[in-house]
Amino acid sequence: MAKLMEDEVFKAFTTYAVIVVVKMLLMAPLTAFYRITRGAFANEEDVAIKPAEERKKLLRNHPDVERVRRCHQNDLENIIPFVLVGLLYTLTGPVLSTALLHFRIFAGSRICHTIAYLFSLPQPSRALSWVVGLLVNFSMSYNVLSTVLYL
Amino acid sequence: MAKLMEDEVFKAFTTYAVIVVVKMLLMAPLTAFYRITRGAFANEEDVAIKPAEERKKLLRNHPDVERVRRCHQNDLENIIPFVLVGLLYTLTGPVLSTALLHFRIFAGSRICHTIAYLFSLPQPSRALSWVVGLLVNFSMSYNVLSTVLYL
Amino acid sequence: MAKLMEDEVFKAFTTYAVIVVVKMLLMAPLTAFYRITRGAFANEEDVAIKPAEERKKLLRNHPDVERVRRCHQNDLENIIPFVLVGLLYTLTGPVLSTALLHFRIFAGSRICHTIAYLFSLPQPSRALSWVVGLLVNFSMSYNVLSTVLYL
Repeated sequence: MAKLMEDEVFKAFTTYAVIVVVKMLLMAPLTAFYRITRGAFANEEDVAIKPAEERKKLLRNHPDVERVRRCHQNDLENIIPFVLVGLLYTLTGPVLSTALLHFRIFAGSRICHTIAYLFSLPQPSRALSWVVGLLVNFSMSYNVLSTVLYL
Repeated sequence: MAKLMEDEVFKAFTTYAVIVVVKMLLMAPLTAFYRITRGAFANEEDVAIKPAEERKKLLRNHPDVERVRRCHQNDLENIIPFVLVGLLYTLTGPVLSTALLHFRIFAGSRICHTIAYLFSLPQPSRALSWVVGLLVNFSMSYNVLSTVLYL
Repeated sequence: MAKLMEDEVFKAFTTYAVIVVVKMLLMAPLTAFYRITRGAFANEEDVAIKPAEERKKLLRNHPDVERVRRCHQNDLENIIPFVLVGLLYTLTGPVLSTALLHFRIFAGSRICHTIAYLFSLPQPSRALSWVVGLLVNFSMSYNVLSTVLYL
């Protein structure tokens, strides 16, 4: 089994995959932080320790919370496919430099996307970083299907 | 490493996994298309180039956008588990014909599901295609657990 | 290919990964059950067989449906990263007892989380079970990156 982890492309994939997944995981504590500081909760049991008259007001949406949640959702829609397709792409035995290019551009694009989203940077910063990540996913998918097509 | 990709079941899994992930990825540009053509955006920075009096009206939900988003969400809930469980199922060494049956039915059911959702086809077309995909996921899960159970 | 499935850590990972994914998959039929029993649907075609005057009332949100959906979403945000990072963690060849500890704590925390969410148990039961699962994901990520770092 250790054979896979001796391969340089596999090590590179593993590194970048874990980095982007950790980035995605961090969106959850960030959502919790905004829920607490902005006072915007989704469940009645979450506000049970507050005085009764305050509770109803705290069960609401807040723009800052919704923004982090949209960013998190966009991560789910893009980072998970990257890891899934990236793993299969890695197993097709691509050239190290080409593979690294895919992984680095993707990781960079998602970090830019998160910054653009959380700080509400002017468009098209967020749109571009999203498109770049999507193109990496399509490029890896195309490479996999053109190497291994078994219908 | 190239050993895995010489296996026929693994090649078949890779092919169908990438096809359904690409189908899922395409829902994102489709959402963007509906947001732009229907004029329904989620972020203030997305409407910053519009005249000030129009901006507020464009920050809204539109039924067509919400429909694509629900379809995308359903893909996340079903296609990602297919790739995760399907990979482990493939590694248990199933018979090629049985594995192909699982992969083909799943891919077919998700394509039917998307068509039924986007074109609002009468029920139970969407419900049935969703259930078929779910049953494939349960069948693969059962096969994996009955082959490899290590608690 | 069958080599991977002879490894004890890989068998343990496979078992726990499929268990938590099946748990996640079950949230979808549960949502369907609540939609039907509570009469709260999202699509016009889903209520087409009802009498015309009832239809509009059935296209609504219901707190029970929204609760299951939030629980499902939390699963997507935590269980999928567990399977992705857990697979790479398993491939780094960890000690069996350490790996089992990670897998068992994670599976236990997610089952507690689901119970706490669906039965609206008093906080911090849900928050704690969520944090425990998150810490397992971070611990596995740290282990992978400290073993395999190839930037």
